[in-house]
Amino acid sequence: MTASSTIGEFESYWRGWRKQVDEELGRLIGAGEPEALYSSMRYSIEAGGKRLRPLLVLATVEALGHDALRALPAACAVELVHTFSLIHDDLPSLDNDDFRRGVPSNHVVHGEATAILAGDTIHALAFQVLARDLLPAYPAWICLQVIRELAEAAVTGLAAGQMADLMASADRVTTKELREIHANKTGSMFRCAVRIGGILGGATPAKMADLDRYATSLGLAFQIADDILDVTGTLEQLGKSPGKDERDGKATYVNLHGLAGARERLLDAISEAERALSSWQGRATRLRQLAQYVGRRAKAND
Amino acid sequence: MTASSTIGEFESYWRGWRKQVDEELGRLIGAGEPEALYSSMRYSIEAGGKRLRPLLVLATVEALGHDALRALPAACAVELVHTFSLIHDDLPSLDNDDFRRGVPSNHVVHGEATAILAGDTIHALAFQVLARDLLPAYPAWICLQVIRELAEAAVTGLAAGQMADLMASADRVTTKELREIHANKTGSMFRCAVRIGGILGGATPAKMADLDRYATSLGLAFQIADDILDVTGTLEQLGKSPGKDERDGKATYVNLHGLAGARERLLDAISEAERALSSWQGRATRLRQLAQYVGRRAKAND
Repeated sequence: MTASSTIGEFESYWRGWRKQVDEELGRLIGAGEPEALYSSMRYSIEAGGKRLRPLLVLATVEALGHDALRALPAACAVELVHTFSLIHDDLPSLDNDDFRRGVPSNHVVHGEATAILAGDTIHALAFQVLARDLLPAYPAWICLQVIRELAEAAVTGLAAGQMADLMASADRVTTKELREIHANKTGSMFRCAVRIGGILGGATPAKMADLDRYATSLGLAFQIADDILDVTGTLEQLGKSPGKDERDGKATYVNLHGLAGARERLLDAISEAERALSSWQGRATRLRQLAQYVGRRAKAND
Repeated sequence: MTASSTIGEFESYWRGWRKQVDEELGRLIGAGEPEALYSSMRYSIEAGGKRLRPLLVLATVEALGHDALRALPAACAVELVHTFSLIHDDLPSLDNDDFRRGVPSNHVVHGEATAILAGDTIHALAFQVLARDLLPAYPAWICLQVIRELAEAAVTGLAAGQMADLMASADRVTTKELREIHANKTGSMFRCAVRIGGILGGATPAKMADLDRYATSLGLAFQIADDILDVTGTLEQLGKSPGKDERDGKATYVNLHGLAGARERLLDAISEAERALSSWQGRATRLRQLAQYVGRRAKAND
């Protein structure tokens, strides 16, 4: 296969899962009372995320030779926690971002009070889904492990990452600190998605260590690509206001290393992600393609 | 025993559990990074709640003849979800309350951004605790049931109740609507606490139905007592700004039925809670005493 037909084939694979994830998410949120709250929840769930984290769960389960469809509720739960964190991150007292996934942020459309509660409800829904919908496809102790993984990622990653981010706005930070911030923030959800795939796919400790390495590098690559796009991208490509990180004086890979330096580090991180799965051979093709996609993302505007 | 010695004995029982709950909560929050976030989390956890919901979990387990100490992590998880919801409820865009549990609200002391994230982290921590600390004292499928119960209460109760509350501020609501709002808001966490106690104590479906009835009436009583105290109480008794509901034009039992009418309904709800456990005899003494405590609460200022 040529490079472009491989890319096309991967994108069609992704579209297939994305459709299933979207349908399942629609079913999970459904209709509820009060309508103002549920409509705010649906607004952010349906705002067209790429469903990268669910794909990480599903592709990992497949890479371990298991049926990924059974893992769909877990893939959705990871996306729910991700969506809740985006809604809260965008709030005026936090990142104060008016655009997200190409449309006005939740609080801009639904008001701050509803956005806070919609985020809280989506957060709780993620755990409800895991405690209810993974059974009987998996034994209870496996479901518990998945819940523990997601809760830990939320505790250690989201809030801590965001707080570190807020503090980093104040002064110039070192590269090492920057790596830690991003390892916590983006990396913890990537690692969580891949580890949940590992748990549901019955990964051995050695395979789990490979997955950890893969996800950590992928999360780093994703964050560098995001920083690059903040400078080179359009609102349409980014789905959020471009140049905002720079205006806010945030520590980004671009303002630490320049555009060329950031691109070099992006390529390194992607190679590292691919290397982590070198012993997996053909089975990890989707996970490798996913890493390559993250690399192409930052090139979109070249 | 005289009435006052019974009260004293119950209060000493409560104090004993409260101490254990406080110690366990302290251990669960502990130290974490970033310090600003964890100090905000500890601020609200240590702000001196009465730990009524944990006591409901523990007293229910005991009423079913089981060892309550093993249920301590579940009791703490319920308190964590309650505390997270209080932090978010107090935010300026929601209830905008500057006092809680007798001290300035979390966002007044720690700022809005940190208060939102502290609430989110405490929320996730509740599920982490359930997925991690209930094992191996209970089998995995029991832990899953408890997680499902808590997540459902959060989804259906907290956010929906608050939204209904916000909408009710706009116009006069009917008594029936008011009952529904409060059944969702206070009731769902009371019911959840008691049902979790029921699950961990191995309640039969019939016993669980009794517990549901008890908790629904207790939640209603608690809400009526709160409404009465909002009018008759001091900041010290209430732990939050008195007269605020009235100033906000909120639908309360007092402005719907007058003070005397609200007191009558309070007594009815407490009798109903006690009647729900009439077949339990001596074993339900603590749960009955807890209902009586809620009645005494509203009389504090008579």
